[in-house]
Amino acid sequence: MIEITLPDGSKKEYPEGSSAMDVAKGISQGLARNVLSASFNGTTVEANDPLPGSGDLVLYTWDNPEGKKAFWHSSAHLLAQSLEQLYPGIKLTIGPAIDNGFYYDVDFNGHEFGEGDFANLEKTMLENARQKSEFKMRAVSKADALSMYEGNPFKTELIENLEDGTITFCDHAEFTDLCRGGHIPNTGFIKAVKIMNVAGAYWRGNEHNPQLTRVYGVSFPKASMLTEYLELLEEAKKRDHRKLGKELELFTFSQKVGQGLPLWLPKGAELRERLEQFLKKAQRAAGYDPVITPHIGNKELYVTSGHYAKYGKDSFQPIHTPEENEEYLLKPMNCPHHCEIYKSQPRSYRDLPIRFAEFGTVYRYEQSGELHGLTRVRGFTQDDAHIFCTPDQLKDEFKKVIDLVLYIFKTLDFQSYTAQVSLRDQEDRSKYIGSDSNWEKAENAIKEAVVEKELDYVVEYGEAAFYGPKLDFMVKDALGRQWQLGTIQVDYNLPERFELEYKGSDNENHRPVMIHRAPFGSMERFVAVLLEHCGGNFPLWLMPTQIAILPISDKYLDYAQKVSGLLKNYDLRALVDERAEKTGRKIRDAEVSKIPYMLIVGEKEAAENTVSVRKHGGEDLGSMSLQAFVEHVDAQINDEIGEFEV
Amino acid sequence: MIEITLPDGSKKEYPEGSSAMDVAKGISQGLARNVLSASFNGTTVEANDPLPGSGDLVLYTWDNPEGKKAFWHSSAHLLAQSLEQLYPGIKLTIGPAIDNGFYYDVDFNGHEFGEGDFANLEKTMLENARQKSEFKMRAVSKADALSMYEGNPFKTELIENLEDGTITFCDHAEFTDLCRGGHIPNTGFIKAVKIMNVAGAYWRGNEHNPQLTRVYGVSFPKASMLTEYLELLEEAKKRDHRKLGKELELFTFSQKVGQGLPLWLPKGAELRERLEQFLKKAQRAAGYDPVITPHIGNKELYVTSGHYAKYGKDSFQPIHTPEENEEYLLKPMNCPHHCEIYKSQPRSYRDLPIRFAEFGTVYRYEQSGELHGLTRVRGFTQDDAHIFCTPDQLKDEFKKVIDLVLYIFKTLDFQSYTAQVSLRDQEDRSKYIGSDSNWEKAENAIKEAVVEKELDYVVEYGEAAFYGPKLDFMVKDALGRQWQLGTIQVDYNLPERFELEYKGSDNENHRPVMIHRAPFGSMERFVAVLLEHCGGNFPLWLMPTQIAILPISDKYLDYAQKVSGLLKNYDLRALVDERAEKTGRKIRDAEVSKIPYMLIVGEKEAAENTVSVRKHGGEDLGSMSLQAFVEHVDAQINDEIGEFEV
Repeated sequence: MIEITLPDGSKKEYPEGSSAMDVAKGISQGLARNVLSASFNGTTVEANDPLPGSGDLVLYTWDNPEGKKAFWHSSAHLLAQSLEQLYPGIKLTIGPAIDNGFYYDVDFNGHEFGEGDFANLEKTMLENARQKSEFKMRAVSKADALSMYEGNPFKTELIENLEDGTITFCDHAEFTDLCRGGHIPNTGFIKAVKIMNVAGAYWRGNEHNPQLTRVYGVSFPKASMLTEYLELLEEAKKRDHRKLGKELELFTFSQKVGQGLPLWLPKGAELRERLEQFLKKAQRAAGYDPVITPHIGNKELYVTSGHYAKYGKDSFQPIHTPEENEEYLLKPMNCPHHCEIYKSQPRSYRDLPIRFAEFGTVYRYEQSGELHGLTRVRGFTQDDAHIFCTPDQLKDEFKKVIDLVLYIFKTLDFQSYTAQVSLRDQEDRSKYIGSDSNWEKAENAIKEAVVEKELDYVVEYGEAAFYGPKLDFMVKDALGRQWQLGTIQVDYNLPERFELEYKGSDNENHRPVMIHRAPFGSMERFVAVLLEHCGGNFPLWLMPTQIAILPISDKYLDYAQKVSGLLKNYDLRALVDERAEKTGRKIRDAEVSKIPYMLIVGEKEAAENTVSVRKHGGEDLGSMSLQAFVEHVDAQINDEIGEFEV
Repeated sequence: MIEITLPDGSKKEYPEGSSAMDVAKGISQGLARNVLSASFNGTTVEANDPLPGSGDLVLYTWDNPEGKKAFWHSSAHLLAQSLEQLYPGIKLTIGPAIDNGFYYDVDFNGHEFGEGDFANLEKTMLENARQKSEFKMRAVSKADALSMYEGNPFKTELIENLEDGTITFCDHAEFTDLCRGGHIPNTGFIKAVKIMNVAGAYWRGNEHNPQLTRVYGVSFPKASMLTEYLELLEEAKKRDHRKLGKELELFTFSQKVGQGLPLWLPKGAELRERLEQFLKKAQRAAGYDPVITPHIGNKELYVTSGHYAKYGKDSFQPIHTPEENEEYLLKPMNCPHHCEIYKSQPRSYRDLPIRFAEFGTVYRYEQSGELHGLTRVRGFTQDDAHIFCTPDQLKDEFKKVIDLVLYIFKTLDFQSYTAQVSLRDQEDRSKYIGSDSNWEKAENAIKEAVVEKELDYVVEYGEAAFYGPKLDFMVKDALGRQWQLGTIQVDYNLPERFELEYKGSDNENHRPVMIHRAPFGSMERFVAVLLEHCGGNFPLWLMPTQIAILPISDKYLDYAQKVSGLLKNYDLRALVDERAEKTGRKIRDAEVSKIPYMLIVGEKEAAENTVSVRKHGGEDLGSMSLQAFVEHVDAQINDEIGEFEV
């Protein structure tokens, strides 16, 4: 008998030769139906293979990333099998699971394959899946492996690089593939398949190698999940911030200015200004001091900070001055500049914590192929701040930053988030800078802060940076996608490198601790995430145009203008639709532009000094005085923004 | 007889051989006493030399720059004469007039000369001046000139480079110097002399040449003028923005960040934020649209704009990307970026004028020796905007910008200013881009705008840029110094180079005209000028700390904090002086920090919920409720800022 320990600590004995699937069946038939893969003593095992002895077993279902990975990896086998059936003589190369599905790179050997062939391929894959063929691993000698792939230079190259004795194949039905393992029990689990895309790809990503065809697919254990997934994709496409940014005239790009360098159009610039003023106000209440620093720095600054040694070669290259031949770098972060400000005068423990805040635009090189809308750019503005404090102040400062981050999430309607606490590797502590006692203090400070603030959190060991532990917020958007927003990061390294000091109450010099934090992350990325989260229907206080005034005919244009002027006095942003269009058309266009309020004005309204109020989406609030409307809107905005309580 | 025409057009005959001084005497003895130099038919002449014939004569006094120049040039002769008397064997080199006085570069040939010797030198100069020695020019052959300066390699080098027949000497008393002319009638005009400074200087500014001693001096036609000048210098020193910026903790520099790159400290950053918000609000009212653009641009952008061809070699050098090897430049101006935004969508005459505004930070290379505080920096933020309009809209747009500039001057207490209209050269029009009719339209638009706005203005022909005419404001600060603030500039060039268009009412494509404008100029320079203008006593609304709360003892600290908290709710910036110092000391320190209001709180105030109000400078407003104080301060601020009327 072997003794199996499950994650909850329960132990049970099973006959020798039992598989993970046998263990699952022993627990419940329901579980057995859902188990996709397993790990034994920390290593992935095949669900059907006999377990090698007693030990720790973890069973994975669709709800675990490991389960999804096995599912999509196995689906790649199914894809390859079906392609071989449909297109005899093709050469297979590699086919991994990816974040949202899987792909296989194939040399089609003269066969034509395109979008028109997707449906047939999906049908063949589903037919093969229904056979419920088990995935079976087997060891193969290098010689046998090579002979199996005679005429396929790709697999041959892969095998050449493997050591004899470590090579395994996976069989299912009559199909065999070179494979390291990690499958679902059988093909029957795959109930829905969609071929998503086909694209060119060079063998091993090298443009000097032959070009292959990459077939992308996604698969699910239930047909309804595929339908939901495709609907989500459709919705995500509609909410793509690049598309919405254009429609709402928020930003644009120009090849002549340079790729990855957004140009903010008036409405986008106004939106950013409002976001910045919103955060500045909260930061002022929370005791932050603004600073402003240049966008370049002498190379020496980054030699001191260590950034030059680490990133210099892969970054934007230095700017030389024509006379002195100094070297300047575009600043990739604001912290070295803030350290120099800290250093510009002597500091005492009485001055701490010092919190320098700056909406600092930084420039980081990204390869042109990596650029994507506002989420991957070459220049972006961080809502950056650096807190310099004593080790004893860390916990309090963390709690204050958490308050600020949560205030932002609440105001911008991000309702679902979790916190991730990244600590040191528990075994190897040699790679971390800073004393053990300081690390302990910081790690405890973060953990306690998170508990005291009653956050939903996970702890990840080994995820801390070498210079300090950190706290990240993972936010779920309206489409259920995860985004990392809001980082709070302890740093022992820069105070050391910049030799920052404060005079303690003991009259001795001490090193302050530094906290980096950016609740938005960057204005660019945050606006992108917010756009996709709300689909362009920003909260009222943020909306570029809040109110559309729609005169039902030219005769009421004067009154419409008068209403617009009055709204301006209340700092409300309104436009008058002056076009000679029917009111129905004007309403439809205001709906498309996502304008939250429409004020329809005609004879009655002009005579009675009122407006007829219609909300975006159709709700009719009826006729009211302009004063009543302003109060209604003000109340909504106050409710949205609230007050940041320190 | 010769006929002399004076600037007022009056003509009079004088005997042949008459000098400018004779003409002056013929007009009045008073004038003769004040005439320092003259120009005849546009060329500088010696006041005592016979005029060569009939022609136009202009007489210059101390009130003309030309008069001052002759005065200080002559004073340099006096300095050289006196130095030779005191330090026999020294070698003279060159000694020009400069903006505020004159200097002479001297090889002291082993003599010691330092600050301790200034008084004696001044005494000798004044003694020599009192001789009323006339300055007399005479022609000298090259051979004679060289023999005169045997053993003086500097003068020898100068003479070697002159053509025989063009060489002149100037004699006064027994002293002679190589000289091109332009003197006052005699040394007796020089009534006051001050040696200001002594410094090292390389011969011809080249560090490989021998080092000389530069002796700086200043002189005046009246002793009282020297006293006033020295007082002004003393006051200017106190108000030096570099000194005040440090004392008031507004900004700092770090060698590690880089020279000429200011770091704005919290109080300076707050000040800037307030200035920016103030202008943003006025600009919003005036119909400007904010945009935000990156701080770099592809080289191609500046090739298109023409900046690269013009400044590329002498600027910050390009930034290369490591993979694509693209070339980016730090942006030296925002206009090319704004042109690309204009171009990002089709524009119609109905959209014009379009006004893009950005507080855009630009980087321009300056040699390290040229850098000076905030007035000459390598990175600065322009309060930039570009107006794109039709030629017919130019005048109206100019008038609107003038309104905005004057609103700023008024709010920041710049009471004395003149406008300078820079137009084309009236003779040579070949160097200007843009059609003659467009230039005419623009020049007339500016002139009419200036007249209609009733500005005090001068017209300068030939001062327009090649791409368009402009309007500059020259502002006099509290010390009477002139600063150029506020530029409004027409541009026909960039719309052409970027091929900007709008669809006219005729359905044809037309080129818009562009106006560049920056009322502040740059935040850095403007804050420097403002600091020196107000000596750090900013208007209340701008003051980093507006109110100091001074508890008369520890017992009233709580009440002081309560007052501070309440003021914060009204967006007022107060600090509590918590030190265990006497109230007198606290008042003195608040005075030194230039804090506009001091609230003294003790038993009576705490009991009655009042504050005792003392203004900076000493005025006692007595005891009042906090509400009354807030109303008082609010009224002052509203009065200062006013409302920008469009």
